[in-house]
Amino acid sequence: MIYNQAFQSFNDQIQLTKEEKAYLRTLLEFKKFKKKELIVRNGEISNNYFYVIKGCLRSYIIDSKGLEQTIQFSSTNWWWADNESLLYDSPSKFNLAAVMDTEILIFNKKGKENSLKKYPKLERFYSIALEKSVIYLRNRLFQILSDNAETRYMKFCEQFPELINTVPQKQIASYLGVTPEFFSYMKRKINAALL
Amino acid sequence: MIYNQAFQSFNDQIQLTKEEKAYLRTLLEFKKFKKKELIVRNGEISNNYFYVIKGCLRSYIIDSKGLEQTIQFSSTNWWWADNESLLYDSPSKFNLAAVMDTEILIFNKKGKENSLKKYPKLERFYSIALEKSVIYLRNRLFQILSDNAETRYMKFCEQFPELINTVPQKQIASYLGVTPEFFSYMKRKINAALL
Repeated sequence: MIYNQAFQSFNDQIQLTKEEKAYLRTLLEFKKFKKKELIVRNGEISNNYFYVIKGCLRSYIIDSKGLEQTIQFSSTNWWWADNESLLYDSPSKFNLAAVMDTEILIFNKKGKENSLKKYPKLERFYSIALEKSVIYLRNRLFQILSDNAETRYMKFCEQFPELINTVPQKQIASYLGVTPEFFSYMKRKINAALL
Repeated sequence: MIYNQAFQSFNDQIQLTKEEKAYLRTLLEFKKFKKKELIVRNGEISNNYFYVIKGCLRSYIIDSKGLEQTIQFSSTNWWWADNESLLYDSPSKFNLAAVMDTEILIFNKKGKENSLKKYPKLERFYSIALEKSVIYLRNRLFQILSDNAETRYMKFCEQFPELINTVPQKQIASYLGVTPEFFSYMKRKINAALL
């Protein structure tokens, strides 16, 4: 069941045979993480790919003032990986933690390489997953550089409706690039305008 | 000669045979653009891949206040593509222009698809190019959310030494997310400290 959910994300791009699915299953490890549990620690090499079955992951950094800044939320059915650490075996700049109780499938670098040797057609899937990451990150940059905080929040609500009331407000504030105080003020203003 | 330069960027990842190079050559179109010339206009579908032989491209947006905000510089030997427009046939959110007189090779979507049908091993090259884009964009987000403007400028100088004195200062300011006035003030401050 949980594996089928992950295979669905492959199937959007390439058709997997029964045999291929059975093989991929041997590479995927199922894990549960508690709310706030750290999965990747900044400074350590991260050579895994993570697929969210249920819940949400958050990648974040600690800025020069010691504050947490959220880079990305990865919700149900999203993949996350530290591509820099994977490609160059460099220490990760990011922390990855479970925002709430979260179930994931983990796939390591060696597993990916083996899967490509055995089934080269999988490269197509990885390539499209990467293309979607480029699109997401460029849109995130676009929003930060172009939109005001209110518009960014409205777009966040559209993109992640499931996170609005489940993720701590200060994490959403840092994702939007505003202080928690300004975020509260902005939400009050929006709610007042909607009344 | 110009083609060999582009093939080198493939060769870093996969070995190309003579026959494959000859085929790829038929797909690549050489073009020259004058300084400031627009290559992709926001609102139009962009179904090309661009490889910079010499010069520099800049992708930018017009923000809600009507100001240009630089998303990305693509210098010599860089690839650029609007992946969202390519994947979904959607109008581009970006403008792409030549920062200075620039020579590029252009590769269109159909050409890419045909190349993959003929030589599936090329998928590996596209996949690593995308992985590098993810790394670049995530680092850019990291810098915007974590570093102060001075540190961002220092990192820009390290990453793009060839652009510091060739790109208009207001374009660098918008890339760094500061006003041209603050950028001038900051540079004077840095120069004074270096004396």
